[in-house]
Amino acid sequence: MISEEHIEAFLKQLTFPSGGLLPAIAQQYDSGEVLMLAWVNEEAVRKTLETGDAHYWSRSRNELWHKGATSGHTQKLQELRFDCDADAILFLIDQIGPACHTNRISCFYNRLSEQGIDIISEPIR
Amino acid sequence: MISEEHIEAFLKQLTFPSGGLLPAIAQQYDSGEVLMLAWVNEEAVRKTLETGDAHYWSRSRNELWHKGATSGHTQKLQELRFDCDADAILFLIDQIGPACHTNRISCFYNRLSEQGIDIISEPIR
Repeated sequence: MISEEHIEAFLKQLTFPSGGLLPAIAQQYDSGEVLMLAWVNEEAVRKTLETGDAHYWSRSRNELWHKGATSGHTQKLQELRFDCDADAILFLIDQIGPACHTNRISCFYNRLSEQGIDIISEPIR
Repeated sequence: MISEEHIEAFLKQLTFPSGGLLPAIAQQYDSGEVLMLAWVNEEAVRKTLETGDAHYWSRSRNELWHKGATSGHTQKLQELRFDCDADAILFLIDQIGPACHTNRISCFYNRLSEQGIDIISEPIR
């Protein structure tokens, strides 16, 4: 567990823009697959660290989003990194089930190639 | 080379917000290391696809940014993916030299752990 003191010191280092949201990348910690990109505010980062489950801010619902709370497809935080400008977050997580609401492992399943747009993975199950 | 027709059809699919910028993740195509997160507008995506070198929109300089144009640390595009909502981009690239302006391979060199914030990589050379 990371102490509240360390969490608050870390949150102070982050450079939140006026809207209060930073991009957070979720990467599967062992395979390195990039699973999704979502948005976090201070509360989402704090909840992620306190609970060990990735939380985001849902821009469409305008509310705190415990990823997988209804689907069971939660993301177990293994490590949190942030970048040189302290304005982007990398969650190294262990994804339970698919990350994508389309039931695909990763949200990044569209590829632009010489043939146009291909879909490179199928929904699981 | 991806045809202009496919590029324009792809750009039309992207959901650019009112500010016109989407987040773009740069990931080393073979190791899977996440190197940086930056921002793209339509022009940056088009230039990336036309030249094969990753281009971004610099929010601090408010101009198109050919990554590595001065440092030589360019990013050779191997593949472009985008997510289920068409509002985040993944550049799979081959990074020449370090991606970070601090001369580190990746910009994500800060880790929050039980001991507080650690720096997990050193500048190269």
